[in-house]
Amino acid sequence: LDYQHVQVPFEITLWIMLASLAKIGFHLYNKLPSVVPESCLLIFVGLIMGGIIYGLNDKSPPVMDSDIFFLYLLPPIVLDAGYFMPSRPFFENIGTILLYAVVGTIWNVFGIGCSLYGICQVKAFRLQDVSLLHNLLFGSLIAAVDPVAVLAVFEEIHVNEKLHILVFGESLLNDAVTVVLYKLFRSFCEMSTIKSVDIFVGVGKFFVVGLGGVLVGLTFGLTAAFTTRFTKDIRVIEPLFVFLYSYLSYLTAEMFHLSGIVAIIACAMGMKRYVEANISLKSHTTVKYFMKMWSSVSDTLIFIFLGVSTIGENHEWNWPYICFTVIFCLIWRALGVLVLTFFVNRFHVNTITSKDQFIIAYGGLRGAICFSLVFLLPDFHRKKLFIAATTVVILFTVFVQGMTIRPLVDLLAVKRERESAPTVGEQIHIRFLDHLLAGIEDISGHWGQYYWKDKLEYFNSKYLQKILLREYDQPKSSIVLLYEKLERKHAIELAEAGQLGHAPSHPSLLRSGFLCSNKRTAITDKKLEDTLNPDVLENIQEILARNLYRIRRTGPAYNRHTLPGEAEPVEHAEEILILRHKSL
Amino acid sequence: LDYQHVQVPFEITLWIMLASLAKIGFHLYNKLPSVVPESCLLIFVGLIMGGIIYGLNDKSPPVMDSDIFFLYLLPPIVLDAGYFMPSRPFFENIGTILLYAVVGTIWNVFGIGCSLYGICQVKAFRLQDVSLLHNLLFGSLIAAVDPVAVLAVFEEIHVNEKLHILVFGESLLNDAVTVVLYKLFRSFCEMSTIKSVDIFVGVGKFFVVGLGGVLVGLTFGLTAAFTTRFTKDIRVIEPLFVFLYSYLSYLTAEMFHLSGIVAIIACAMGMKRYVEANISLKSHTTVKYFMKMWSSVSDTLIFIFLGVSTIGENHEWNWPYICFTVIFCLIWRALGVLVLTFFVNRFHVNTITSKDQFIIAYGGLRGAICFSLVFLLPDFHRKKLFIAATTVVILFTVFVQGMTIRPLVDLLAVKRERESAPTVGEQIHIRFLDHLLAGIEDISGHWGQYYWKDKLEYFNSKYLQKILLREYDQPKSSIVLLYEKLERKHAIELAEAGQLGHAPSHPSLLRSGFLCSNKRTAITDKKLEDTLNPDVLENIQEILARNLYRIRRTGPAYNRHTLPGEAEPVEHAEEILILRHKSL
Repeated sequence: LDYQHVQVPFEITLWIMLASLAKIGFHLYNKLPSVVPESCLLIFVGLIMGGIIYGLNDKSPPVMDSDIFFLYLLPPIVLDAGYFMPSRPFFENIGTILLYAVVGTIWNVFGIGCSLYGICQVKAFRLQDVSLLHNLLFGSLIAAVDPVAVLAVFEEIHVNEKLHILVFGESLLNDAVTVVLYKLFRSFCEMSTIKSVDIFVGVGKFFVVGLGGVLVGLTFGLTAAFTTRFTKDIRVIEPLFVFLYSYLSYLTAEMFHLSGIVAIIACAMGMKRYVEANISLKSHTTVKYFMKMWSSVSDTLIFIFLGVSTIGENHEWNWPYICFTVIFCLIWRALGVLVLTFFVNRFHVNTITSKDQFIIAYGGLRGAICFSLVFLLPDFHRKKLFIAATTVVILFTVFVQGMTIRPLVDLLAVKRERESAPTVGEQIHIRFLDHLLAGIEDISGHWGQYYWKDKLEYFNSKYLQKILLREYDQPKSSIVLLYEKLERKHAIELAEAGQLGHAPSHPSLLRSGFLCSNKRTAITDKKLEDTLNPDVLENIQEILARNLYRIRRTGPAYNRHTLPGEAEPVEHAEEILILRHKSL
Repeated sequence: LDYQHVQVPFEITLWIMLASLAKIGFHLYNKLPSVVPESCLLIFVGLIMGGIIYGLNDKSPPVMDSDIFFLYLLPPIVLDAGYFMPSRPFFENIGTILLYAVVGTIWNVFGIGCSLYGICQVKAFRLQDVSLLHNLLFGSLIAAVDPVAVLAVFEEIHVNEKLHILVFGESLLNDAVTVVLYKLFRSFCEMSTIKSVDIFVGVGKFFVVGLGGVLVGLTFGLTAAFTTRFTKDIRVIEPLFVFLYSYLSYLTAEMFHLSGIVAIIACAMGMKRYVEANISLKSHTTVKYFMKMWSSVSDTLIFIFLGVSTIGENHEWNWPYICFTVIFCLIWRALGVLVLTFFVNRFHVNTITSKDQFIIAYGGLRGAICFSLVFLLPDFHRKKLFIAATTVVILFTVFVQGMTIRPLVDLLAVKRERESAPTVGEQIHIRFLDHLLAGIEDISGHWGQYYWKDKLEYFNSKYLQKILLREYDQPKSSIVLLYEKLERKHAIELAEAGQLGHAPSHPSLLRSGFLCSNKRTAITDKKLEDTLNPDVLENIQEILARNLYRIRRTGPAYNRHTLPGEAEPVEHAEEILILRHKSL
C-alpha cells in the first residue's frame, strides 16, 4: 500500500465525492430541501464530520485553509454568478446596488466596530484590552454580506427580480469595500502611528480596487472573446478559454491587490455575449453545465468545511461580546437599509417597499468569506474570540435567518418572481420604450442610463462586434432564426400529432402547410405562448433583445395589413429570401 | 504585487493557456497539421520554450515531474481512450491484443535489455560498468509502446479499425506488464542476491496487477452507474460522478500498486452503458465534451513538457549506446510482431496482412511514460545516460516514425478506415450473425466469444440493468425512438424546404403527411442514408446495437408485406400507440 503517493488527489477527490453524495442524499427525500435550506444541511453534515474527526483524533479537525478558499473554491461560484447575472435588472439598479455595497458596508463596518468598542468598555465583560482598531478590523470582516450564502438561500425562495438583484448585487460588489477596509485596518493595527494621509490613501484605494478590478476583468473578458474567434477548427477546447481567462482575471486582480470578485464578474459579463456567438452550441452547453456543476460543488464544499472547521478548540467563548456582535450586525444592517432606502426612494419612481426593505435587511447573511478572513488575521491574543464571534454570526445568519426567511416571505406576501417569462409582446414593448426613452433623453440633453445604453450598443455594433465576433458579416442571430425555429417547432408538432394517432385531416395539413410558409404573419403572441416550451421562448427573447433594434431599421417585422392565410405563400417566401440574401 | 500568493494556480493556468493557444496557432494554417503531426509541433514548441528558459536562467529548465504526469496528466487521456473505446473490435481482437501487450512486451524487454548488455561488453564503448540488471531495467521502461503518442499519431492517419485497435489496445494494456517488470527489476537492482522464488513471485504479479486493475475498475464503474440512478433531481452534478469515480479507480489501483491504466479503462468501459442511460442528454454532452477537452489539454501539456524537459544538462551523450538503443528498439519490435503474428494468423481466418504487420511494428511509438519512468529511476552513476537514450528514442519515434507513417500508409496502400459508417442494414446483419453464431457455438458445445457475449448480455439484462438503471421498466431507448427521430427529421426537412421558397405542392404535402404516419413502413436503408446526417445515423446505430435483440423478441420490426403508402395510416398509428402503451 502506497498511500502517500496518491494522498493529495485522493483526499481531494474523496471530499468532492462526499459533498456530491451529500447533495444526492438530501434530494432523495423531497420534503427536506423545501423546509431546510441546503446550506444548513451541508453545514450540519460538516459538523458531524468534524465531530467524528475530533472524536477519533482527539485534536481539532483541520480548518478550511483561507488560501484554498480564496484561490480555488470562491472563483467558480463568482464566475457562475457573473456569467448568469441577469444584466438588465443589474444595470437598471446599479446605482442602488452600489449605494448599498459601498456606503452600506462602510456604515456597517463603523457602526459595528464602534458599538462593539463601546461594549468593550464595560468592565464586567473583561474586554478592555480590545482596542478600537481591532474592533474596526473585526467589523470590516463581519460586516460584509456573503454572496455564497445569499445565493444559496435566495435561489430557493424566489423573491421578485429587483429584490433578488439588490441583495445579490450588493453581496458581490461589497467585496471591493471589504478588501480595502480589511487591509487598511490590518495595516493600521501593525503601524505604530497613523497619519491622516494614510486615511486619505485608504479612501483613494476604494476606487483603485474597484475600478481596477473592472478594468482587469474587462480586459481578460474581451481577450477571451477575441480568442474564441479562432477556435473554429478545434471546437473541443473552446470551453476551456472561458474558464482560463476568467480564472486568470481573478488571479491577476488578486495579485495586484485589486478585487478579484469584481474582476471575474466584469470578465464574465464582458465576454458572455461574444463568446456565446463564437462558440458552437455543444461547447456552450458544456460551458454552462460545467460552470453550474463546478460552482455547485464549490458551494457544497464550502458549507461542509464551514461545519468541519467549527468543531475544535479555536474558540474563546466570551458570550457578551459574541451576543452583542450578533445583535449589532442585525441592528446596524436594518438601520443602514432604512436610511439608504429613504434616500434611494426620494430619487426613484419605482420605490422599494417596506416589505422589500425588511427582506433586504434580513437577507444579509454572512458566510465563508468572513470565516476565511478571520483566520487570515495576524496572530494576537484575542484572535480566538473573533473566530468564535464570526462562527456564531455565520451559524446564526445561515441557520436562523436562512431557515426563517422563506416563511417570512410567505407571511409578508412579498412580491414573488413572476411564474412565466415575459411574453414576446412585452419584450417588444420594453425594447420600444427603451429606444423611445433614449431618444427623449437625447433630445432633452439629460444623459441618463438609456442614453448611455444606446451609445454603448452603438459602439458595440460599430466596433466591438467586428473585432470580437467570427461571423459578424453574416447576421446569424437575426429574427429570421426565430421564424425558422417556429417553423421547425410547428413541423415537429405536426409529426408528433400524427404519431399520437390523430392523423391530421387533409385540410388541416394544407393549412399548416400554408402556415409554414406564411412565417411572417403566422406569429402572434398567443400562438407563441401556446406552442413553445420555456427554453425556446427564452432563446427567442434573447434574440429579440439582441436584434430587434437592427431589424427595426431594415424593415417592418410585422405587417398589420395581412392576415394569416391571406397572402400568397410563394410571394412571402421570395420576399424573405431576398431579405436574407441582402443581409448575407 | 503579491505574486507568491497566486503563483501555483497562476502558473498552471498560464501553462494550460500556452498549450491551448499553441493548439489554436497550429490550426490557423490548415496545411501544417496535415503534414506534421501535432505531437511533433508541440514538442517543438516545448523545445523552444525550454531553450528560452535555459537561455534566460542559464540552468536546466524544470523537468516534467513524474508525479504530476502520473497523477494528473495521464488519467484524463486514458479515461478518454477507455470511454470512447470501440468495444466491439476491442473484444473481437482481445486475444491478439493481449498477446502483443504481454508476450510482445516481455519479448522486447528481454531482447533490448540483453542485446544492450552485449553492446556494453564492447570495450571501445567504455560501458562495462552497466550491469545486465540495469540494462534489463532500462529495457523494461523503453520497451513499452506509449498510448498518448500512438493516439496522437494514429488519430490523424485513419488506418482500418482492426489495425488501429491492435496498436492502440496493445499500448494501453502493456501498462500492466511494464509496471510489473519495471518494479521487479528496480527492486532486483537494490537487492544483493536474487532468489529464484522472487522471479516466480514476479510472474505471479502479472496476473495480480492486471486482473486486480480490471477488478478495481469494474467495481468503481458499476458503483458510478449505481450512483447515477439517484441524480434525477440534481442533474447538474451528474457529469461529476463519471470523472470522480474513474479518477478514484485510477488512484486506488495506483495505491495498491496495480495497473491504474487498466483500472481506469475497465471503469470507463464498465460504466459507460449504464451511465449514459441514466444521465440527461445535456449531462452526456458535457461528459463527452469535457472528457475530450481535458484529454486534449493533458496531451498538449505532455508533449510541450516533453520538449521543455529535453533541454538541459541531464544527459550523458554516449552515442554508441544511444544509437544501438534506437536500432534494437526497432529490430526487436519488428521481430516480435513477425513471430507473434505468425502464431496469431495460424489460429485466425481473418489474418493480419504483412502490410498491417509493418504498420504495427512501425507504429510502436515511445512517449511520455518512458520519459517519466526514467526520471523515477533510483540515482546511480549512469542514470543520465539512460535519460539521454530515452530522450533520443522518444524524439526519434515521434518525429521520424510519426512523420513518415502517413506517407508510408499511403505508399503501401494500407487498408483505410471506411469513409462512411456501416448502414443500418449491415448493422442488422452483423447482429443477426452474432446471434446465429452464439446459437451454433451453444449447440456445438464450443464456448467461444459469441457464446460468452450472449451469456453476458443475458446476465446484463436480467440482473445488472435492473440494479443500475433508473428507468429500466420503461424501455426508453427502444426502436420507437428511432421512428420518432425519423419523423421529426422529416418534418423539419419539410419546414426547411418550404422556407427556402419552394412551397411544397399539395400532393407532396399530402404524401409527406402519409409518410409521417406510415412510420413503420417508410424506413428503408436508402432513405436513412439519404436524409440523415452522420450524428443521427450514429445514434440510430447505437440504439439498434443495444435493442435489436430485445425488439426482435417482442415483434417484427419490419413488415415485408406492406409497402409505403399502402396501409391505412390510422390503423398503423393505433397499433404503435398500443405497442407503446404496453411498453409503458
